[in-house]
Amino acid sequence: MKLHFYILSILLIGLSSCKEEPTSQADLNSQSQHPKLILTAQGVQDIRAQLGNIPIFDNTLKKVKAEIDAEIENGIEVPVPKDYSGGYTHVTHKRNWLVLQKAGVLYQILDDEKYAKYVKDMLMQYEALYKTLPLHPKTRSYARGKLFWQCLNDSNWLVYVSQAYDCVYNYLTEAERDKLETNLFRPFADHISVDSPQFYQRVHNHSTWGNAAVGMIGLVMDDEQLINRALYGIKDLKLDANKKDDDGGFLNKDGKAGFLANIEEPFSPDGYYNEGPYYQRYAMYPFLIFATGLHNVKPELKIFEYKDGVLLKSINALLNLSDADGDFFPLNDGQKGMSYYNNALVTAVDISYYYGEQDQGLLSISEKQDQVLLDDSGLAIALGIKEGKVKPFEKKSINLSDGPDGNQGGVGILRQDDVELVFKYAAQGSSHGHYDKLSFSLYENGEEVIQDYGLARFVNIEQKGGGNYLKENKTWAKQTIAHNTVIQNETSHFNGKYEIGSEHHPDLHYFSSENENIQVVSAKETNAYPGTEMLRTMVIIKDEDLEKPYMLDIMKLTSDKSNQYDFPFYYFGQVLETNFEYQVQETLKTLGDKNGYQHLFLEATAKANDGNSKFSWLNNNKFYTITTATTNRDKILFARIGANDPEFNLRRDPTLILRRKNEKNTLFVSTIESHGSYSPVTESAVNSKSSISELKIVLNTNDYTAIEIITINGNKKLFITANNSASKEAKHTLKINDNSYQWTGAYYFK
Amino acid sequence: MKLHFYILSILLIGLSSCKEEPTSQADLNSQSQHPKLILTAQGVQDIRAQLGNIPIFDNTLKKVKAEIDAEIENGIEVPVPKDYSGGYTHVTHKRNWLVLQKAGVLYQILDDEKYAKYVKDMLMQYEALYKTLPLHPKTRSYARGKLFWQCLNDSNWLVYVSQAYDCVYNYLTEAERDKLETNLFRPFADHISVDSPQFYQRVHNHSTWGNAAVGMIGLVMDDEQLINRALYGIKDLKLDANKKDDDGGFLNKDGKAGFLANIEEPFSPDGYYNEGPYYQRYAMYPFLIFATGLHNVKPELKIFEYKDGVLLKSINALLNLSDADGDFFPLNDGQKGMSYYNNALVTAVDISYYYGEQDQGLLSISEKQDQVLLDDSGLAIALGIKEGKVKPFEKKSINLSDGPDGNQGGVGILRQDDVELVFKYAAQGSSHGHYDKLSFSLYENGEEVIQDYGLARFVNIEQKGGGNYLKENKTWAKQTIAHNTVIQNETSHFNGKYEIGSEHHPDLHYFSSENENIQVVSAKETNAYPGTEMLRTMVIIKDEDLEKPYMLDIMKLTSDKSNQYDFPFYYFGQVLETNFEYQVQETLKTLGDKNGYQHLFLEATAKANDGNSKFSWLNNNKFYTITTATTNRDKILFARIGANDPEFNLRRDPTLILRRKNEKNTLFVSTIESHGSYSPVTESAVNSKSSISELKIVLNTNDYTAIEIITINGNKKLFITANNSASKEAKHTLKINDNSYQWTGAYYFK
Repeated sequence: MKLHFYILSILLIGLSSCKEEPTSQADLNSQSQHPKLILTAQGVQDIRAQLGNIPIFDNTLKKVKAEIDAEIENGIEVPVPKDYSGGYTHVTHKRNWLVLQKAGVLYQILDDEKYAKYVKDMLMQYEALYKTLPLHPKTRSYARGKLFWQCLNDSNWLVYVSQAYDCVYNYLTEAERDKLETNLFRPFADHISVDSPQFYQRVHNHSTWGNAAVGMIGLVMDDEQLINRALYGIKDLKLDANKKDDDGGFLNKDGKAGFLANIEEPFSPDGYYNEGPYYQRYAMYPFLIFATGLHNVKPELKIFEYKDGVLLKSINALLNLSDADGDFFPLNDGQKGMSYYNNALVTAVDISYYYGEQDQGLLSISEKQDQVLLDDSGLAIALGIKEGKVKPFEKKSINLSDGPDGNQGGVGILRQDDVELVFKYAAQGSSHGHYDKLSFSLYENGEEVIQDYGLARFVNIEQKGGGNYLKENKTWAKQTIAHNTVIQNETSHFNGKYEIGSEHHPDLHYFSSENENIQVVSAKETNAYPGTEMLRTMVIIKDEDLEKPYMLDIMKLTSDKSNQYDFPFYYFGQVLETNFEYQVQETLKTLGDKNGYQHLFLEATAKANDGNSKFSWLNNNKFYTITTATTNRDKILFARIGANDPEFNLRRDPTLILRRKNEKNTLFVSTIESHGSYSPVTESAVNSKSSISELKIVLNTNDYTAIEIITINGNKKLFITANNSASKEAKHTLKINDNSYQWTGAYYFK
Repeated sequence: MKLHFYILSILLIGLSSCKEEPTSQADLNSQSQHPKLILTAQGVQDIRAQLGNIPIFDNTLKKVKAEIDAEIENGIEVPVPKDYSGGYTHVTHKRNWLVLQKAGVLYQILDDEKYAKYVKDMLMQYEALYKTLPLHPKTRSYARGKLFWQCLNDSNWLVYVSQAYDCVYNYLTEAERDKLETNLFRPFADHISVDSPQFYQRVHNHSTWGNAAVGMIGLVMDDEQLINRALYGIKDLKLDANKKDDDGGFLNKDGKAGFLANIEEPFSPDGYYNEGPYYQRYAMYPFLIFATGLHNVKPELKIFEYKDGVLLKSINALLNLSDADGDFFPLNDGQKGMSYYNNALVTAVDISYYYGEQDQGLLSISEKQDQVLLDDSGLAIALGIKEGKVKPFEKKSINLSDGPDGNQGGVGILRQDDVELVFKYAAQGSSHGHYDKLSFSLYENGEEVIQDYGLARFVNIEQKGGGNYLKENKTWAKQTIAHNTVIQNETSHFNGKYEIGSEHHPDLHYFSSENENIQVVSAKETNAYPGTEMLRTMVIIKDEDLEKPYMLDIMKLTSDKSNQYDFPFYYFGQVLETNFEYQVQETLKTLGDKNGYQHLFLEATAKANDGNSKFSWLNNNKFYTITTATTNRDKILFARIGANDPEFNLRRDPTLILRRKNEKNTLFVSTIESHGSYSPVTESAVNSKSSISELKIVLNTNDYTAIEIITINGNKKLFITANNSASKEAKHTLKINDNSYQWTGAYYFK
């Protein structure tokens, strides 16, 4: 506490000595006044007035000051570029961009010239270095940078450094600015744009960074050419529509480019970003920070209202794509553990609050983040928290459409109590997409119950393939068998072909979350396997006979030929009990030799029961049970990831696979219950058994599928889903055995 | 808060209406006054005087009252015995013993007759049932009970119910007491003792429960015959010295029996319990609760001073056998997750504080436990906490001798910062012992770095073998290859034979923890493999060139013949990097066909480097590196547990095994570093590489072994250990190359 007051005193002394800068309201509002980009002159004035009185802001400032003071103490290092990600020169330049941005902000808020001088000195070293630089010596990228091995990182640098330049703009002499702009900023902006069109001229998160970098330095330099290049792409440039990048994504298939196109394309009207939340988090920063700059410098563009306010909507979508702990669902290429604690989400939350509708729920996330942006938006958040406006951010069930117009499938999330079901029926998701149509993952209170594998990569861990994508990302993580969905004849959806996958998407059949006790999402995929239609209906049911809400899963397959269908469940933990006999393998062989199957070791096999097959497991001291409707022609396979993995890149996680052969049309019906708990301290097992005694398919026609669930208390529930006419208004009448059912809407449940 | 005050008010109203019981000091001190066993009449008076004013006690009381009120509401169930552990009748009778004990206490503290009546009613139902009971129908135990499938659980019942009986003794009429004593308690005590001598007449944790049960009901009934039978065993009984129990332990090899013998035998003078902490925790309760009863009713026995106060010392030993989170090290048959949060440890901590020396460190553990005994000792703890006497319980490095006289090996724990090294050089540890002489496990801040597997059992989880020991406990968990020590010619220590293992123990070579920066434990084993001597010296070194303290491990083997030596490290997590080439297996085969090797799948093999072989891994976002001195004749094997496991009873954990063939005398030298961290939120890897550049054996003679450690900063450290003359006073002079070293004591380090 003492230290806290001490530092605040220093800050306040710093402020009281700030007499040199005359700041009339007129000056402050002028767009030629600096800073103007993110931090504004008015914002600086307001922040200074509140300092010492806004705890979360004051604390962030204290930490940033301590960090940058230590950096200044250590001296400046601007090494000649040499390394890949994780290597020394890479890490140093990456560190510098953050330090420059923060030092610029400190100069403005604390009005202490030592920070401005530090920024100037480092920028001058970059100026001296940059003009000597050839392309970066490492050749792996499709678009090599100069400071970094890829233009992407060069763009990151410029997005941050533009802010630093804006903050010290007035501190520099005109000659100094000329020098920097002529030898550093303009050639830098040109290298990542006109000199690297394959990187810049795309609809892709890489290009968004490029656009923002060029645009932000353009806004600071008041350079309309750069600003226009940022907003609309490189003028009159045409690229080969068939070229691909390092990840196998098309470089520029339809000729669209520039920041506005990058907003148009990847975001659905609901704010879902086509690559999924992990990349949205990464892409978010340039979107929002450049948008803030545009809002401040070019308010006439009304950037936050663009496409019906999609940028701010996307923040809400992203927050909803996280589990109870704030970790993003690892859809497509997503590294687990990335969460709304990431700095990009501090930016997103603060900007969403300030430039959006001051949603008080956002204040609770900001409190958890325990830091704010040191700018106008961070001030607003800090004041909101200080004034006691904090409310919980309540995540509810949500359906997020995918595609620029919201008609290319989507992601449905059903939430009930602690249970979260994530159902992916989205489009391909650009080059980071996985081949997992109609796949799902299941969470309880932030823990994975049925996992999505995520990516095969250790981001920034140099020892693992330089921290880059591992080859197992393609051979395993992207393949359909790595996901909780159906695999036909041991081939991936769209044969694992990006070109084909990119042309198609599933369609929403219906989504219903009005009734909290029964929530349903249903979608159809007809292209993943030509000639086969997959209709998956996933339900979360809260029933008083069961301790917790449970999942009901109905996958209806209709095909024009006979197939083998594999239906995996990626559980975690220890096998507890089955109601069928299984035989373990003495030696472990792979389950197949391609399409991801070569990475699975077969551990045990079983013949399924005629009726129901049950599988219980224990993980993290909690019990789980799958009950699935089977016949004795079905096989059950126990497998584990890790085969053909010469560098131990894959996790040795288990899966249970239901295999059905020689069927044209078929139906997979399962429930998953989470139940009870075990305490190793009291050694007591509570509610360790399933509460479902039977799961029965009572009807399965072209139009309807009806499932009966009988609990151990003997109560029966009937769920009927309409396979065709699923509108809310549709009226249905159906006779099953001697009973007649009538209802309105897509499903019946009683 | 409101509820809290409300309930306290009810309690206080209850107290103020308590006018019926006249309690003069003379009455209170009389040993014929009840309660007298655990809760005393004086204690009751003191507790009532403090109620509402002792938060942790008041809160515990509130919870217990709520729990028992709900039980009373639900009514009494005393079913006819039928099930094994985890089954309905087992669970119900187990629940009842706790409920009876608590209800008795509530009657005394709250002076509310409803609790006494409830106890009486349930006891009468037990009386009615018990006299009709044959042996329990389940036949698996070597000593079947009547209420439960084994006498052990019957004894548990009586230990608790004795306390309940004591609490309601004065509430019952003499006729009621006669009925209970004649038809229930005395036959019950007889069944578990004179009728089950194979259970009762032993030195074993089972018998301790039996002794305590018989003794405690004897104390309440004032029955000298039972008390003597408890203290000294069944008079004039001789058992077959060669018979064994279900776990393969000898029933009674040397004829010793009774509570005092059970204190004598298993506890070393340092308070180490020969089966290890998991079973000590289990055994602790009857030791301490019966000792408390003896202290209260037979103070002339001075039970807490018996064997130099070993009972109270054992509590300190047990607390020191836990990691930073309070989880006990899973030596021998220990289930992971058992911790000082277990109720038995609430008893231990409270009793240790009250009957021992009021160690204020114990108050901090009690605070974490957040509950106290509702008796005289719990009152003392509650008052201590309330009076602000709490101090942290500091666990330091400790050497705990094993064996009744402290000369049968032991367990050494080295602690430095967050690192804990557990070195086991103990004796066999009775029937729950594992064949792992000189094995170790390594912890950091409560997380396992190098694990001990623990037991193969899911205690009380009925689905897994009835919650009992699984056959893999013997075929895997007890075998040497399941542990971090040396295995000669793929056979377990003592050939896995309990009879042989029980005759031997390693010997301490030296233990030194005076210098915090270098702590050493060294021990010798000469019987595990006849003709081979194993001398292992384990060191924790704090060096300013390394981020954290690291482990140095020197295993010196001297044999009269050529052998194969396997040296495993049971790490957790993901392989990160090696400095040697390895080849993964296409299909996984077992590493061997017996002695535990049949449970390991071989995943990859490598030829070691000439010099140092390095292996790095990542677990829970932390980095670790083993550096080990090898030659290119050594092999390195990557293996994983789980082969020949027909019911998936084993965890699929990995191990790295160093294999050296055709050597007589050899030396394994390794370091293990924990270093750095990874954040999936910032995606930054900090200090992900080893700080040790070289590990060199510079000398290895009969008398001395000298190891040089070179850090990446180029600094050199030399550790010399004396292999023979290891006293503190021993003076050594040694010439290595051209340098001369002189020191006093067992080791040199500079």
